[in-house]
Amino acid sequence: MSEKTVVEYVLAAPWLVPIRPHGVLEQHGLAIGQGRICDLGPQVELRARYPSARWIDLPHHVLLPGLVNSHTHAAMSLLRGLADDLPLMTWLEQHIWPAEGRFVGPEFVATGTRLAIAEMLRGGTTCFNDMYFYPEAAAQAVVESGIRASLGQVVIDFPTAQSRDAGDALRRAEMQILQLRDLPRIRQSIAPHAPYTVPDHALREAKALARSHGLFLHMHVHETAQEVENALSQDGRRPLQRLDELGLLDEHFLAVHMTQLTTEDLDLVAQRGLRLAHCPESNLKLGSGIADVAQWQARGIPFGIGTDGAASNNDLDLFGELRTAALLAKGRDGDTMALAAAVALEAATLGGAMACGWGDSIGSLEIGKLADCIAVDLDHPATQPLYDPISQLVYCAGRDQVSHVWVNGELLVNEGRWTRLDWPGLRAQAQTWARRIAAKDRQA
Amino acid sequence: MSEKTVVEYVLAAPWLVPIRPHGVLEQHGLAIGQGRICDLGPQVELRARYPSARWIDLPHHVLLPGLVNSHTHAAMSLLRGLADDLPLMTWLEQHIWPAEGRFVGPEFVATGTRLAIAEMLRGGTTCFNDMYFYPEAAAQAVVESGIRASLGQVVIDFPTAQSRDAGDALRRAEMQILQLRDLPRIRQSIAPHAPYTVPDHALREAKALARSHGLFLHMHVHETAQEVENALSQDGRRPLQRLDELGLLDEHFLAVHMTQLTTEDLDLVAQRGLRLAHCPESNLKLGSGIADVAQWQARGIPFGIGTDGAASNNDLDLFGELRTAALLAKGRDGDTMALAAAVALEAATLGGAMACGWGDSIGSLEIGKLADCIAVDLDHPATQPLYDPISQLVYCAGRDQVSHVWVNGELLVNEGRWTRLDWPGLRAQAQTWARRIAAKDRQA
Repeated sequence: MSEKTVVEYVLAAPWLVPIRPHGVLEQHGLAIGQGRICDLGPQVELRARYPSARWIDLPHHVLLPGLVNSHTHAAMSLLRGLADDLPLMTWLEQHIWPAEGRFVGPEFVATGTRLAIAEMLRGGTTCFNDMYFYPEAAAQAVVESGIRASLGQVVIDFPTAQSRDAGDALRRAEMQILQLRDLPRIRQSIAPHAPYTVPDHALREAKALARSHGLFLHMHVHETAQEVENALSQDGRRPLQRLDELGLLDEHFLAVHMTQLTTEDLDLVAQRGLRLAHCPESNLKLGSGIADVAQWQARGIPFGIGTDGAASNNDLDLFGELRTAALLAKGRDGDTMALAAAVALEAATLGGAMACGWGDSIGSLEIGKLADCIAVDLDHPATQPLYDPISQLVYCAGRDQVSHVWVNGELLVNEGRWTRLDWPGLRAQAQTWARRIAAKDRQA
Repeated sequence: MSEKTVVEYVLAAPWLVPIRPHGVLEQHGLAIGQGRICDLGPQVELRARYPSARWIDLPHHVLLPGLVNSHTHAAMSLLRGLADDLPLMTWLEQHIWPAEGRFVGPEFVATGTRLAIAEMLRGGTTCFNDMYFYPEAAAQAVVESGIRASLGQVVIDFPTAQSRDAGDALRRAEMQILQLRDLPRIRQSIAPHAPYTVPDHALREAKALARSHGLFLHMHVHETAQEVENALSQDGRRPLQRLDELGLLDEHFLAVHMTQLTTEDLDLVAQRGLRLAHCPESNLKLGSGIADVAQWQARGIPFGIGTDGAASNNDLDLFGELRTAALLAKGRDGDTMALAAAVALEAATLGGAMACGWGDSIGSLEIGKLADCIAVDLDHPATQPLYDPISQLVYCAGRDQVSHVWVNGELLVNEGRWTRLDWPGLRAQAQTWARRIAAKDRQA
């Protein structure tokens, strides 16, 4: 932080949850300039220190870092609710894959990602970690919107909308990396789909490519018991073991889902410094299993919380997801102390930032970090009376209580309204896609 | 329905989910008069039939019955978030019980119930089933607010804020039944707390009292494995068996929680025609267990969904709760078809109405029933695009999307704003209570 940075405005609220350090600060404020947090302190001190800065009073609000969605397939918002309550393979083979096969292309990805961003911004998510086709189209939506993202090209070893096989996808990924690397608010990953859909040679190549560009790998791992059983019977190894023997596992590897971990798996994850993403609602809805996040926490494994794609969830509401995570961790083994409120909130902010390559810059309200933050209005019957703001944020507050969202110091949601987005236009585009998709789905 | 009932207004929406019959009606409307549903049909027909009725267009909305909260302790909203993430007995013995012991009285119950009603109405709940002390104070809050409720006096065999023992509580309950029986929008129950806190003689007496007044019994049953184990070791019987041998179990018995049921228990529940209430978020947060609602559904057992009290949950958001129920049922045993969206929605409406003694009058949009209904605005990024309104209601919609709420034909929430309620006054009262409670809690 240069000493010359001019403080443009100060956000002042009765409660501020910086995440680092832990706890709640009362009657504090954040001084923001050039997109960064320049100062943080008691309001009386900030008033004296920055007399000419614009003062923004948030009288019933709590300020906290923007939420980070650690795993999603943003463009799949266009398939939200297309089919539900079916056996997994019927859902995939008769609905989702045919729709993707017919419709996924740059236009689909751009519109679907815009819709996802609209939903995420309004619900307090300021950064998302995406895995999908045509990241360059997603990047366009990100740049237009002002949100922050990590974008990863899917690498999969069968023909898709955009590549013939894993090798082809990797060549495409390399081009994309070069194409997107200078865009604002965007970082990148390479996203091998899953251990069972990418062969060894392509996984090694993906790791080499990631290493050469300083990127992380983003992959679904141990999502279901079936995945692990199939690998054991075909390969004699658990998928995580195979990935380790291929040299993939280190602190630049984000493993998503991870519902099936033995004690040995957990040891390996902790030793290698992996980052994990927990998607509890997707895991429930798809019957995948329930990740043992209390164990992750006990071993100090960094993890974030993700919504997964809207086709399998069916929303991108990280307040809902973090609440489900906090409740489910307790219910899983009957431990009322598992994933306490403050731990869940840290996972949904700093944990997510660390998971998707942004831990140095966002995820906590600390001087010098980028000014990605949100205000949640606690003047709502669900969050009154108030004993503990962190408990209210995790166990009671809804996405509807997010009143203000700043990314890079820019106000993107003001009193619950988007500042950049044309909602009627976007809604019309989404509905046009849905009519086409539904017509084909009904024919099938 | 008298043929002379004058239709006062017609609600018209692109989608209407009547619950009975199943499915979605498009471009239909509800004709309302004298607090009842007088007619239901295609909008073109209603326009011709009721040319002088006021026409209320809900252009992006789905109309459905108001949600029914099958189990709560409304006044405990004043203890929301007082203490969390503690071992169950620490939470109860060091925080909740001392606070209740010091503060619960008619004023506490009136303010706490008002706050709970504010939250429930705004989130689309039009009827709640309460178990708490001083039901006459809760009744006052219900009548003022216009919501509908079943109120049950807690019967417990130790000294409480309002009675010395179970016998004393039953005498109090009898007075209350007579006192409240003519109040509008209120029905009553008798609420023995749980099998382990009420002795046989008092349970028999409660049943006799309920029978003589045509009321139902409302009781926590098989909430935890510990409860069942303790009963087996002390009494040699499972609690449900004991209740059956006492003659309590029939269609006028609502058993809440029921996370621990053997096949024999399920057979008994089905044979006796019990009603059940499922409180998934409370069961998760308190580590009680995960009820097997797919089995309840398979046996045709009527059940509703409840939030439980806000001290243990920590909100009264039935949209959130029904979504958790739908997701958790799938995750529990990895069955993606368990508790399909339409089944969950029926549980949260008609199932709840049946559970708390209102099944004849509310819970579905049928001609002749009372006009308790809500409009949910689907013009929100989380519910676009739209393939299936029922999927959107269950898997994506939030309490914030409830735009209009009618109870008995009266508009109580209009465009998201309460029509009767003084929120700043109520918030101030709740905060006054919280300051007193927190001061004592910190001393403890």
